[in-house]
Amino acid sequence: MSIVRCGPENLGHDFHQIKLAGINSASIGIFSWSALEPEEGVFDFGFVDDIMARAKRAKMAIILATPSGAKPNWMAQKYPEIRRMHSPGRNVAPLREEQCGRHNHCPTSPVYREKCQIINAKLAERYGGHPALAMWHVSNEYGAGCECPLCQAAFRQWLEKKYGGLKALNEAWWTGFWAHRFTDWSQIGMTDGSLPAMVVDRRRFDSDQMLDFFRAESAPLRAITPDVPITVNMMGTYLPLDYWRWAKHVDVVSWDAYPAYHDRPETAVTTAGRFSFAHDLNRSLKGGKPFLLMESSPGPTNWMQINRLLRPGQHRMKSLQAVAHGSDGVCYFQLRKGRGGCEKFHGAVIDHVGSEDDRMFREVAALGRELKRLGPVLGARTPAKVAIVFDWESRWMLNAANGPSAFAKDTDAAALGHYRAYWKRGIPVDLLNGDAKLDGYDVVIAPQLYMLREGFAARVERFVEKGGTFVATYLTGIANETDLVFSGGLPGPLRNVLGIRSMETDYLYDDERNEVVMRPGAPMALAGVYPAAYVCDVVRAETAEVVATYGRDFYAGGPAITVNHFGKGEAWYVAAAGADDGLLDAFHGALARARKLKRALPDCDLPAGVTAQVRQTKTGRFIFVINFNNDPVVLAFKKTRRDLLTGRAVSGRKTLPAYGALVLED
Amino acid sequence: MSIVRCGPENLGHDFHQIKLAGINSASIGIFSWSALEPEEGVFDFGFVDDIMARAKRAKMAIILATPSGAKPNWMAQKYPEIRRMHSPGRNVAPLREEQCGRHNHCPTSPVYREKCQIINAKLAERYGGHPALAMWHVSNEYGAGCECPLCQAAFRQWLEKKYGGLKALNEAWWTGFWAHRFTDWSQIGMTDGSLPAMVVDRRRFDSDQMLDFFRAESAPLRAITPDVPITVNMMGTYLPLDYWRWAKHVDVVSWDAYPAYHDRPETAVTTAGRFSFAHDLNRSLKGGKPFLLMESSPGPTNWMQINRLLRPGQHRMKSLQAVAHGSDGVCYFQLRKGRGGCEKFHGAVIDHVGSEDDRMFREVAALGRELKRLGPVLGARTPAKVAIVFDWESRWMLNAANGPSAFAKDTDAAALGHYRAYWKRGIPVDLLNGDAKLDGYDVVIAPQLYMLREGFAARVERFVEKGGTFVATYLTGIANETDLVFSGGLPGPLRNVLGIRSMETDYLYDDERNEVVMRPGAPMALAGVYPAAYVCDVVRAETAEVVATYGRDFYAGGPAITVNHFGKGEAWYVAAAGADDGLLDAFHGALARARKLKRALPDCDLPAGVTAQVRQTKTGRFIFVINFNNDPVVLAFKKTRRDLLTGRAVSGRKTLPAYGALVLED
Amino acid sequence: MSIVRCGPENLGHDFHQIKLAGINSASIGIFSWSALEPEEGVFDFGFVDDIMARAKRAKMAIILATPSGAKPNWMAQKYPEIRRMHSPGRNVAPLREEQCGRHNHCPTSPVYREKCQIINAKLAERYGGHPALAMWHVSNEYGAGCECPLCQAAFRQWLEKKYGGLKALNEAWWTGFWAHRFTDWSQIGMTDGSLPAMVVDRRRFDSDQMLDFFRAESAPLRAITPDVPITVNMMGTYLPLDYWRWAKHVDVVSWDAYPAYHDRPETAVTTAGRFSFAHDLNRSLKGGKPFLLMESSPGPTNWMQINRLLRPGQHRMKSLQAVAHGSDGVCYFQLRKGRGGCEKFHGAVIDHVGSEDDRMFREVAALGRELKRLGPVLGARTPAKVAIVFDWESRWMLNAANGPSAFAKDTDAAALGHYRAYWKRGIPVDLLNGDAKLDGYDVVIAPQLYMLREGFAARVERFVEKGGTFVATYLTGIANETDLVFSGGLPGPLRNVLGIRSMETDYLYDDERNEVVMRPGAPMALAGVYPAAYVCDVVRAETAEVVATYGRDFYAGGPAITVNHFGKGEAWYVAAAGADDGLLDAFHGALARARKLKRALPDCDLPAGVTAQVRQTKTGRFIFVINFNNDPVVLAFKKTRRDLLTGRAVSGRKTLPAYGALVLED
Repeated sequence: MSIVRCGPENLGHDFHQIKLAGINSASIGIFSWSALEPEEGVFDFGFVDDIMARAKRAKMAIILATPSGAKPNWMAQKYPEIRRMHSPGRNVAPLREEQCGRHNHCPTSPVYREKCQIINAKLAERYGGHPALAMWHVSNEYGAGCECPLCQAAFRQWLEKKYGGLKALNEAWWTGFWAHRFTDWSQIGMTDGSLPAMVVDRRRFDSDQMLDFFRAESAPLRAITPDVPITVNMMGTYLPLDYWRWAKHVDVVSWDAYPAYHDRPETAVTTAGRFSFAHDLNRSLKGGKPFLLMESSPGPTNWMQINRLLRPGQHRMKSLQAVAHGSDGVCYFQLRKGRGGCEKFHGAVIDHVGSEDDRMFREVAALGRELKRLGPVLGARTPAKVAIVFDWESRWMLNAANGPSAFAKDTDAAALGHYRAYWKRGIPVDLLNGDAKLDGYDVVIAPQLYMLREGFAARVERFVEKGGTFVATYLTGIANETDLVFSGGLPGPLRNVLGIRSMETDYLYDDERNEVVMRPGAPMALAGVYPAAYVCDVVRAETAEVVATYGRDFYAGGPAITVNHFGKGEAWYVAAAGADDGLLDAFHGALARARKLKRALPDCDLPAGVTAQVRQTKTGRFIFVINFNNDPVVLAFKKTRRDLLTGRAVSGRKTLPAYGALVLED
Repeated sequence: MSIVRCGPENLGHDFHQIKLAGINSASIGIFSWSALEPEEGVFDFGFVDDIMARAKRAKMAIILATPSGAKPNWMAQKYPEIRRMHSPGRNVAPLREEQCGRHNHCPTSPVYREKCQIINAKLAERYGGHPALAMWHVSNEYGAGCECPLCQAAFRQWLEKKYGGLKALNEAWWTGFWAHRFTDWSQIGMTDGSLPAMVVDRRRFDSDQMLDFFRAESAPLRAITPDVPITVNMMGTYLPLDYWRWAKHVDVVSWDAYPAYHDRPETAVTTAGRFSFAHDLNRSLKGGKPFLLMESSPGPTNWMQINRLLRPGQHRMKSLQAVAHGSDGVCYFQLRKGRGGCEKFHGAVIDHVGSEDDRMFREVAALGRELKRLGPVLGARTPAKVAIVFDWESRWMLNAANGPSAFAKDTDAAALGHYRAYWKRGIPVDLLNGDAKLDGYDVVIAPQLYMLREGFAARVERFVEKGGTFVATYLTGIANETDLVFSGGLPGPLRNVLGIRSMETDYLYDDERNEVVMRPGAPMALAGVYPAAYVCDVVRAETAEVVATYGRDFYAGGPAITVNHFGKGEAWYVAAAGADDGLLDAFHGALARARKLKRALPDCDLPAGVTAQVRQTKTGRFIFVINFNNDPVVLAFKKTRRDLLTGRAVSGRKTLPAYGALVLED
Repeated sequence: MSIVRCGPENLGHDFHQIKLAGINSASIGIFSWSALEPEEGVFDFGFVDDIMARAKRAKMAIILATPSGAKPNWMAQKYPEIRRMHSPGRNVAPLREEQCGRHNHCPTSPVYREKCQIINAKLAERYGGHPALAMWHVSNEYGAGCECPLCQAAFRQWLEKKYGGLKALNEAWWTGFWAHRFTDWSQIGMTDGSLPAMVVDRRRFDSDQMLDFFRAESAPLRAITPDVPITVNMMGTYLPLDYWRWAKHVDVVSWDAYPAYHDRPETAVTTAGRFSFAHDLNRSLKGGKPFLLMESSPGPTNWMQINRLLRPGQHRMKSLQAVAHGSDGVCYFQLRKGRGGCEKFHGAVIDHVGSEDDRMFREVAALGRELKRLGPVLGARTPAKVAIVFDWESRWMLNAANGPSAFAKDTDAAALGHYRAYWKRGIPVDLLNGDAKLDGYDVVIAPQLYMLREGFAARVERFVEKGGTFVATYLTGIANETDLVFSGGLPGPLRNVLGIRSMETDYLYDDERNEVVMRPGAPMALAGVYPAAYVCDVVRAETAEVVATYGRDFYAGGPAITVNHFGKGEAWYVAAAGADDGLLDAFHGALARARKLKRALPDCDLPAGVTAQVRQTKTGRFIFVINFNNDPVVLAFKKTRRDLLTGRAVSGRKTLPAYGALVLED
């Protein structure tokens, strides 16, 4: 189940060590353009031929990469247009970048697109029928953002297609303000911080244009090898690309995860929550289909400020974590540390010295043996009844808004705050785009969902009417898809289902506190006082019931949590941010009990820092129990189950060591 | 008395709400160029016609703005020269800005000047005789700074006019240092951080050139409507523009004040002091003539890092504060929150939803009713016997100097430190430019007045000889008008009147302390030990009497405060900065008693955070008492007076609520 | 022995004051190009003639500077190519700088080289035979770094000369990574952060190219005045220039030292250590030959954030410190404070006012009288048996590496940590380049010597075999001269002599701690537990003896200090960084005792903050004892010696005042 990438520099590498490490697949060819096409039109596939042949003999599956992640020097020199442009600062016109680094090509350049199609066609023709070829890995970690004239023209075309005419654009962008009404398409540049709606359309365009580039470079692969699946390696919650839109065009979702467990020990559980969330996001991108952990490092990376060593067992822990959340593989970057270059100190399966008794190698090999036992889990899915709306476009828009505090713009932290309440209880969670259907879920949460898609509120109303539980928060429901604030009173079209009106919003300094005071006899047995912080929305209850009130400031006594009974369901509004996890933990804990949400491991209380995730196939149900703590914990099971990793039965009191894991067959 | 601005986007707005809010005047047309002239030479005054007509019917006074604050896209595209240029960083040649934002036109461009004159002439011709037209509001919040070839050429002409020849310039700029002697005018650029005198001349030019632009765009208004007064909205102590020079060319001083009372509650009194100072500066700009608060926000702005809500009553408090210090009106930005754009969350009279029961609207309306009762205060002036020299050119020069610490360059903080001692006692203060006459004042203070104008020392000598009290501090009297250090021993020409020589200056780290120890039997009953910090000037007393000495470091025992008896008056030198307000409060408190300076409210001790300001007309004297604290205070009046706001008599013990105010008729 | 620099602006200055101050030499002409050649080809040597004549009459020695440190305006305007270029930010193409500041000429420009040669030839011809001429001071504080087309071409030629062909370059730079294989020399730019080996070659080129410029401008001086020595003023450990390579081309090493004793008092001893180290470096640059303190300030500089005053006696202290470590003079910048410009508040011998009773002037004059008594010390050398390898190229390479923490890259701090252990004991230390011979030393230390020169390990082996003691640390021995990591296991070729293998390296956050636990019965009586921090190398002892182990984390019990007995000597590996000076102090203290290293003042224990340095001639041995503390200390001498400064005998208990010094004749 392990996969490894090796670059052209590892051509002569001993496949013996790959076998020792239990590696059965490899991704190759990334950044290899200068080797594959050393001069324009001169091709050399020698090293790829060699690896493919060795892989075939070793019965390995090859994930073959296209080389567009880094353009060769000769091309950057001959065709300057392929080099990205950007403004060197405060409002000045963009300048052309020099050739350097990687991931910095123009996504629009016809020359670059053509060059990519030529080399990709060659690869597809040469290896399309090779028995070792398992999948296409197109480019690498796509980024976004170029301001060259070609991109500017493409942006204008994109806008023209979107808006039809300038009148619609001027209205959507509110250009009357500060006299920025456009009277000709050619007047539109790419950057004007004073037009937030333009900033958001620029982000949409950047993501779309790179997606268009990806589709263009994939075209020869699709044409020549229609049966070979295509993946691109994504980067979790990476802001510039709307992966919801991308996922529609890839066959297998994969991503590169570098959780910094090799950081301060005390941050381990926080890191675990963040990466579980990101794994769940990847699983959700294609509606629950298993994804692939495309890159991970068996040792510390080299790009953190302080690169602590991974403690023994942490690599195993984080690998099993990926599988627990839906990955069907654990792949590495990198096989062997390069002797030179900027990643020569990045963790790898094999160290510079190449010996087999290095700690990293031994941990990888041991994990390889374990992963082989997880065959039954392949293809398994995760049954989630809770969904969190995580909408790239809304993130962009809130990000571009002038007014909300940095805390209020941190949509990732907001989503995570709600996510953690379920994750720690072993209740699976899906992520949803803002245009998704809500059917089939018991609980749908829209944290800081600043922008509402057309139709979202109507979908929520139907969902609640039929018995669903909807949860919104401060800063949910502020603006429409072109960043125009709803004029009928906030939270706009959600006002009806939530039964409240947001009157004004207070932002607090990080050290300031308010209180959320549960009312006596509040629903779901909610009780107590919780510290509030950062954002306090001042609300007027219309049809909603007041569940909790503020404890301080001039709006003390005003609603802090409300619930509106709507049809067969309920719509909650959480007006304040908690100062810590306490408020959301209490709230969602009560909700989980009230809605009887199913836990992965119902017969065992999970200590802090221990999680349980479930994956199920038609024939089996597998519970991954992982201890993210730096110390052992004791679990008490009421039921007896078999641990796939050891083959042994697990029941009663069981000590899970630091970083320990179980994969229990239910 | 309230005024509001509304942009073209509010054309159809209900004048009913304006009336409800007690608004009797409005500023319109700012940033409206793309509406007024949608294409080059095609004009559309429809929305202005409409508002003017409605205003006439409502008996409102309109302050009509010229639109030059933001250039329209078509113009920026067709005439690139109107777009400002600036260097993108460390010494590289300036690049042209893209069209974006606002306030970024070139002040020199003949094209832009011509376009402004055309549109302004149209406005003057069309509305010059309109009964609703009350005043011209030229452009908006002028800034400064362009480095395009046109500006560079203008800078050289400005220099040539100023210096006559290169010999004089080379001497003034001390260009022999580092071989920067200029041998041709064309060699002179705009930026060379190693020539501080050039940096200061650049600032002078930038301010002058924008002033020249303002005068050019005002020319058609002056010509066509000679009787309509002109204002520009200024920005307090904004460093780039020398408002002393500007004030000569406007008829009514107005400014935009956004005191952040919606910040941390504990900063309220500090904020109050800073904005009272700025109001007094605006009143002083035209020798005491009432000014206009042109922009204020009834709610929080949207550009602070953390935008807290204004607590109930704070808007009333800050509005009355402006009137207390000389404003004859309270105007708002903005009437209604825009649905889009970058200020859509900025406080406004009317929220997006447009309802009349929003808190902001209700507070504005209530204030409108109160302001109507302050008619007798209109035109009233403030009798001040204390003046603080606050000289833009000296600020620029000290700012450009290499050596003094950040604290020592903070001339605003320095002036404020002295100001607060009088403000808290209810003793009115004027601000003066460095070239002003000193006659008529009892006390003149020159805090950190690094640069002395030609003739300043002579004026001080005459002032003191006749009985005046002059106070100078460390870093006063260092350099002449071209930043050449005085060679006859510091503080240069003031050495005679002060009777001391500054030998060397010690700068302390922020956490380091010295002490100012009053000598036994010091004048004015000064006594005690005060913590000193930041700057300690090491002084030799020549003819002066040593009043206090340093308590620590190798200069312990040396003079820290001196007084020189000169003619009928006294000249004080405060060599050290206080670590807090203690030193200056003790010093100026003693001075106020000794000079019997008149307090606005002599019969009542003012608690901390409560101030009293006086405005008087030929017939009346009005005392504004404001509580800036977050808690109520109790005042004890010996005299009975009528409160204009309520019409009720005030005497004896009176509780002033948090943010409360009285306007007492004396 | 004092020297002073005066610019053209001081032409008329009173030589009387120079005489009063005991100044016997002066450096003139720096930055005087606009005076010497006011127009192209028009020369005016009047002010130099005048000074030279006065100097001759006063029997002063003149150090005449060439003016290339600042280009005149006319030249910068007429020949833009002489102005440096640099990229304005993130990867964009370089832009031309505007004329400004100083030290910003292109080092490659043929025009600038020619102009320098013309003016330098004029100076040499005019003053070559002048009796006052003592030395040439070429340019001023050379810097490095230009990215213009001329420099880019020169860089490519430099690379072609170094590597011969692109194949070798591609291998050395590891360009296969990220597809950066070069196929034509013209593809090579100057910046690509993703090629660390290129970054290092760029640094080598920058240093070499400026050295080449220096040699070019020196050529006329060498030709016309072959007997007049040449110096350039260096800047200590200034990273951009490899002074080891430079020193070969200058006759006398000189440098500009601005120790910030006028900073917080509590940093005085730390500052002292750093500047003693830098003085020793300057002495080592030409194998122990005395150097010259070319610039120092009798008062505070003006470029620190907070410019505290120098306390009385500190100027004397720091001047004698320079002499103690090998300087044969104390020169000042600047003679008189300029009235204008950016250094008008920089400390000087004479203040603006020009009076002789200013503190600075009095301290300089007093010091001048004392220095005259140190004639016997002139030319004396320092006998050092301890050497620290301090290799510019290794610093560059470690600096460019991705992975090691900021602490781990701070090679200066690392070298200083070892240095201080000897400095505080009065044991002299030399610094060595990485290619130096090790013969003659007892102890050679290679702290964080990331890069090993070809042959270095072999030299170390011979040195240890013969009985030497070698000390290496974590991060020593990682990469070869083109930044390729050694493949035979770290520390590469030193693995044999050290007898260990470095398995992996842990970097700790600044507040994290581990422990170094000396083993019972460790060699040299090492004992105890020391806090470790920042970097902990995880080591496997091969032939080495484990001296100390780690106390914490998963590698607790593993080797933290090892010693390998190799031939007659020992090779130590210190795997962990100390959290403070404790570890290295204990280690080197033990080593000093074991190796019986000779102390400068063996009969007297030195209190903290007091140092003893020795200089010896054929006939005398002089011990400089300096108290860097802010308080007096008591010393107890067993032997009686004469203090050269006072002529008095010193013996028994002697109080040394704060900042006090003795120069004892041994």
